[in-house]
Amino acid sequence: MNRKELFQQIQDKKSFLCVGLDTDISRIPIHLQKEKDPVFEFNKQIIDHTVDAAVAYKPNIAFYEALGPKGWESLQKTLEYIPKDIFTIADAKRGDIGNTSKLYAKAFFESMDFDSITVAPYMGRDSVTPFLDFENKWVILLALTSNEGSKDFQMIRSGQDEFLFESVLKKSATWGNPDNMMYVVGATRGENIAKVRALVPNHFFLVPGVGAQGGSLEDVAKYGMNDHCGLLVNSSRGIIYAGKDKDFAEKAGIEAKKLQQEMSRLLQKYL
Amino acid sequence: MNRKELFQQIQDKKSFLCVGLDTDISRIPIHLQKEKDPVFEFNKQIIDHTVDAAVAYKPNIAFYEALGPKGWESLQKTLEYIPKDIFTIADAKRGDIGNTSKLYAKAFFESMDFDSITVAPYMGRDSVTPFLDFENKWVILLALTSNEGSKDFQMIRSGQDEFLFESVLKKSATWGNPDNMMYVVGATRGENIAKVRALVPNHFFLVPGVGAQGGSLEDVAKYGMNDHCGLLVNSSRGIIYAGKDKDFAEKAGIEAKKLQQEMSRLLQKYL
Repeated sequence: MNRKELFQQIQDKKSFLCVGLDTDISRIPIHLQKEKDPVFEFNKQIIDHTVDAAVAYKPNIAFYEALGPKGWESLQKTLEYIPKDIFTIADAKRGDIGNTSKLYAKAFFESMDFDSITVAPYMGRDSVTPFLDFENKWVILLALTSNEGSKDFQMIRSGQDEFLFESVLKKSATWGNPDNMMYVVGATRGENIAKVRALVPNHFFLVPGVGAQGGSLEDVAKYGMNDHCGLLVNSSRGIIYAGKDKDFAEKAGIEAKKLQQEMSRLLQKYL
Repeated sequence: MNRKELFQQIQDKKSFLCVGLDTDISRIPIHLQKEKDPVFEFNKQIIDHTVDAAVAYKPNIAFYEALGPKGWESLQKTLEYIPKDIFTIADAKRGDIGNTSKLYAKAFFESMDFDSITVAPYMGRDSVTPFLDFENKWVILLALTSNEGSKDFQMIRSGQDEFLFESVLKKSATWGNPDNMMYVVGATRGENIAKVRALVPNHFFLVPGVGAQGGSLEDVAKYGMNDHCGLLVNSSRGIIYAGKDKDFAEKAGIEAKKLQQEMSRLLQKYL
């Protein structure tokens, strides 16, 4: 998917919601546990009930990998079930030397046809660029994450009297462009989103820190929105575990719709 | 496996060789392609012919992941085939927020029973510590890698007038200890290995940069060895692709033996 198509989707649905499919087998409602593939059945119903409110889905790869070969089959089926006009993110946080990153890219972009993958920057340019060689595919690079540990290294002052996450943004922005790179930008503090937006005015941000991880949607829109929206805001647990009984998917749909309505208002206000 | 057992293995075999199982389906000899599981068959023969010279095996997870569910089956079978007294490394470079890292840990330490996993430090403490909660299991944290891109961020001067990789070492050394953490330390320059050794005198290093990625084994031993050896030096392509015909495994065995003999000499000289 290209940037124009993604923006079109955002305008059509009046939403920049990404639904995180962190599907934990131990939290799937009991009535689904007897299904042949409970993880896929859960995802299918979540997708059915959130598809009008979401512009992106983000399976967290760890949850599938933890189930072994069967988990990869559930992931593949889930990906095939997501309508083709919706943006898909493999939240995998990969990154390795060149020939290895190339294999990860092939796994997620060719074998599995994801639109994008999250990548960690620590190993530098040649660990990231192999993911940029695929047409209409995206790297979503970790810049500033929303977890407690983000302070350990991302907020270290680097030699240029800036934080490490700023060095990562400046340097990596020269490796790709706003048509094949996005950044993970945590929403724990509005001022940081504004800083990142100043450094990379045209890139999309994937914002993980709304909901369970804290952060205000109003601030994200106020400080982060650009003229192509430039935001995908993720919610995982707040949506997919809104209910735990037979009506789990309806409840997920209601939560997704609430966020979409708030996003519709913010798009009118800030776009 | 604990540190004492690993050191015992090193002394018994007079070797600190790790064989990297970067098994590329397109480079497997033709006569194996007709097997039901060519990747496992290849690994099995490589293991048979290198097991006397190696103290560790390191499957590069990307190569298996790229093959989908079938690849994970080949990986599982390979892991089960490796004798239990040999150290196993999942070269996966994972790292994510706490609950996700915990799932990756379960995938590699419980579902698959690897002794260790490589982890990227960018997301900080809470992305690393979930891997430390498993008895006799190890985190191998990226500190200084041997690829070109290692200069982009790892060699940035951080605020304390030290390189970022030094900040990573200092801070992360307080999260674990030499019995549950190792570090990836590239061998491209001996002086850097000496720097790292000064910061973490007792930890094991996994050294990837010997052979195809350059670096001298003599320098690694001279600057990196401690009183528990403290080194696992990896060779992947130089061993597993030493031959490409029916005798590929014998040729791999010869290359592994050569490295083991050199290591035996270095252990006598520096231990």
